[in-house]
Amino acid sequence: MTAARHKQNPQSEFSYRDAVSCYLVCGEPGSEGKMSEETLKRWREQIRTELDNVVDFWLKYSHDTEHGGFFTCLGRDGTVYDDLKYVWLQGRQVWMYCRLYRTVERFRLPEILEAAKAGGSFLRKFARVSGVGSGDGSWKCAFCLTRDGKAVKIQRTIFSECFYIMAVDELSRVTGDQDMQLEAEQMMEQLIFWVRQDSSGLGRPQLSGDVPTNCMAVPMMLLCLVQQLTEGRAEQGVQKYRELGSWCVKQILQHIQRDGTAVLENVSLEGKELLGCKGRLQNPGHALEAGWFLLQFSAERGEVELQQTAIDKFVELPYQAGWDKEHGGLFYFLDVDGHCPTQLEWSMKLWWPHCEALIAFLMAYRQTKRPELLQKFSQVYKYTFSHFPDAEGGEWFGYLTREGKVALDIKGGPFKGLFHVPRCLYMCERLLDELLVSA
Amino acid sequence: MTAARHKQNPQSEFSYRDAVSCYLVCGEPGSEGKMSEETLKRWREQIRTELDNVVDFWLKYSHDTEHGGFFTCLGRDGTVYDDLKYVWLQGRQVWMYCRLYRTVERFRLPEILEAAKAGGSFLRKFARVSGVGSGDGSWKCAFCLTRDGKAVKIQRTIFSECFYIMAVDELSRVTGDQDMQLEAEQMMEQLIFWVRQDSSGLGRPQLSGDVPTNCMAVPMMLLCLVQQLTEGRAEQGVQKYRELGSWCVKQILQHIQRDGTAVLENVSLEGKELLGCKGRLQNPGHALEAGWFLLQFSAERGEVELQQTAIDKFVELPYQAGWDKEHGGLFYFLDVDGHCPTQLEWSMKLWWPHCEALIAFLMAYRQTKRPELLQKFSQVYKYTFSHFPDAEGGEWFGYLTREGKVALDIKGGPFKGLFHVPRCLYMCERLLDELLVSA
Repeated sequence: MTAARHKQNPQSEFSYRDAVSCYLVCGEPGSEGKMSEETLKRWREQIRTELDNVVDFWLKYSHDTEHGGFFTCLGRDGTVYDDLKYVWLQGRQVWMYCRLYRTVERFRLPEILEAAKAGGSFLRKFARVSGVGSGDGSWKCAFCLTRDGKAVKIQRTIFSECFYIMAVDELSRVTGDQDMQLEAEQMMEQLIFWVRQDSSGLGRPQLSGDVPTNCMAVPMMLLCLVQQLTEGRAEQGVQKYRELGSWCVKQILQHIQRDGTAVLENVSLEGKELLGCKGRLQNPGHALEAGWFLLQFSAERGEVELQQTAIDKFVELPYQAGWDKEHGGLFYFLDVDGHCPTQLEWSMKLWWPHCEALIAFLMAYRQTKRPELLQKFSQVYKYTFSHFPDAEGGEWFGYLTREGKVALDIKGGPFKGLFHVPRCLYMCERLLDELLVSA
Repeated sequence: MTAARHKQNPQSEFSYRDAVSCYLVCGEPGSEGKMSEETLKRWREQIRTELDNVVDFWLKYSHDTEHGGFFTCLGRDGTVYDDLKYVWLQGRQVWMYCRLYRTVERFRLPEILEAAKAGGSFLRKFARVSGVGSGDGSWKCAFCLTRDGKAVKIQRTIFSECFYIMAVDELSRVTGDQDMQLEAEQMMEQLIFWVRQDSSGLGRPQLSGDVPTNCMAVPMMLLCLVQQLTEGRAEQGVQKYRELGSWCVKQILQHIQRDGTAVLENVSLEGKELLGCKGRLQNPGHALEAGWFLLQFSAERGEVELQQTAIDKFVELPYQAGWDKEHGGLFYFLDVDGHCPTQLEWSMKLWWPHCEALIAFLMAYRQTKRPELLQKFSQVYKYTFSHFPDAEGGEWFGYLTREGKVALDIKGGPFKGLFHVPRCLYMCERLLDELLVSA
């Protein structure tokens, strides 16, 4: 596998522009509003090729063979423009490599396993920062490290730790190393303590005006970790996270506000709307991601009512609110009352909300077979594949203007690594496999 | 004075569109490349009217008559969309009101003085947060407060404190309250200690990978405060900040890098270029602001060589690097090697760099009478006045896309208050007064 092959021999390779043109001709819903099996197969083929190309890109450009771990600040052509190592992205890349290695036959390659192991070693050696936080120091992770692993920055949140757990647990599944699994579960205990009992170890001062908040990201990430730590494990391992999973779902559902007409990013701990911009904030991509987490959870537990809520409130609603009727694509942030958000990037089109929307609509269709969900998938697919992939430099652009022009031509940065794009393509390929088997 | 007058009787008022059209017809440099006295007068008239309108807007919409202090989250038409109070902006508005009241006859109005006093009381009562930082708690200020003054967020930097000092010192000049002046000077001592001796009281953990950095903002702000605290004061008051002023200038000059061809935002404490994105970052608006700080300083001390350096390196160079040749306007961030910056807003056109550029070019021209500096002023003026003022809602838009479209239509927010626009207009009016007197 080589990321450069589409450059070396462009004539013989899948071309994004061709694919999009072909899709526009062949892939639209017919007059009866149904997609043909041919369309599903075409999507699967495009997605599979895209996944191969994206993984190639990171295999080729991101490995630090000297220090272990991954460069994630990659320019349009893969050039490393900064060698800082962001812990979220280190953990995500280890997780993605391991997940692909473990579950997709064509990615069971020694170079993927070796890179994942080297990334895991780097994380385990350097990510945890001692002496920070009161008593919890040994579990707090840095946000950013130098190339050789020295801490540059620590966030006073739980997310570096979340991606550390995902990485180390998935690596333990590939290597069979039970110490790693134990380490992931121990850090998970610390996380649960910070979130549900006492957050003072995270280092944030308690301020009287700082209203305790249920931020969507926290229960979402914990639910994701519950699914990670329990998948396919024996009853005992599953049982201890059962109540936590239900708690996370309850916390996520608190974000349905305004008589069920909106999902808000931040609510009070009692599930009430908060005042001001913070309370009115909408993040459609995040809601859509929560949507497919809830769909997975509802399928595992056979909760039909939750499935319906997930589709109505966390898939269809954020799409309706978040889709730009003028220029297409999903807004990054919105204010539920229509005020202008204060985030300068509010109207930009980022790659990851589109990735989450693709998974959410395809999973919702897979579970219900309601044709309108596949039509929405098709609409998001069309926008996504005609705007984000870079046929010239490989991989996807991450940041477009509202109008859909490339605003930043980087392929990776402090927040974009080997994660949302390949996870989306991997999930969609599997969902299409399942749909085509049952077709 | 009422902010609504341009709405109530638009026919009789100065219109931005008219002004711009008029300017475009009358204000261009003649074939001999010189501006006529008429042009200077026309600019002064436009700027004066604009300053009146902008101050009106904030007088009308931003005062919290219940709790004191100012609302700064104001929508396009002045509506308060959030009642959080950002300490930077509280301090800046107190400073601006006092400065206008003290030095411009037509602003010597009771309502301005009362608002400044109420803002000052709010700041002094609520901004300082006790119990934060080790031993320095009584001087650390919050970044954001609730409407009634409870701390919401603290930054681990010195900037809330800087604007607190500016506000309280300027208020002491208006009211003659020597306790206030003393308080400003005491907080200044604390700031100097944090910056030059020990920053641990700011609450940032010491991390081995976090290279100590000379960030442009720090010596710039300290130099601004030296000028604030010494202006017009007796020798004794001036003397104690003399060495600090020179130290600030030295620190600012360290940002000239690449054999004098670029100003970089972050350098090492030894004045060397730092690795990676952080080291390559350019912020043209910031460099231009530093430029006019240096010009003021060089004029006060009669340092001709420094004046030349300020113009060459901090006025002309950032303008050359930062001006968008395709769409006009100054970029927000750039990478000196031409990589794409990782800040999502890098290519947006913000109001404040244009404000700083106007002051810098006009002051440079005022000091040297070099006609090319006035031509650059004219170019920036043209872009600024045709893009930022909002003839419909009053005040200025703050955030445009690269192409010059309004991206956020707010008039105030967490970082935009009564400061850059009126300071620019105030400074430019005075500079034009001086030029016209000497013409």
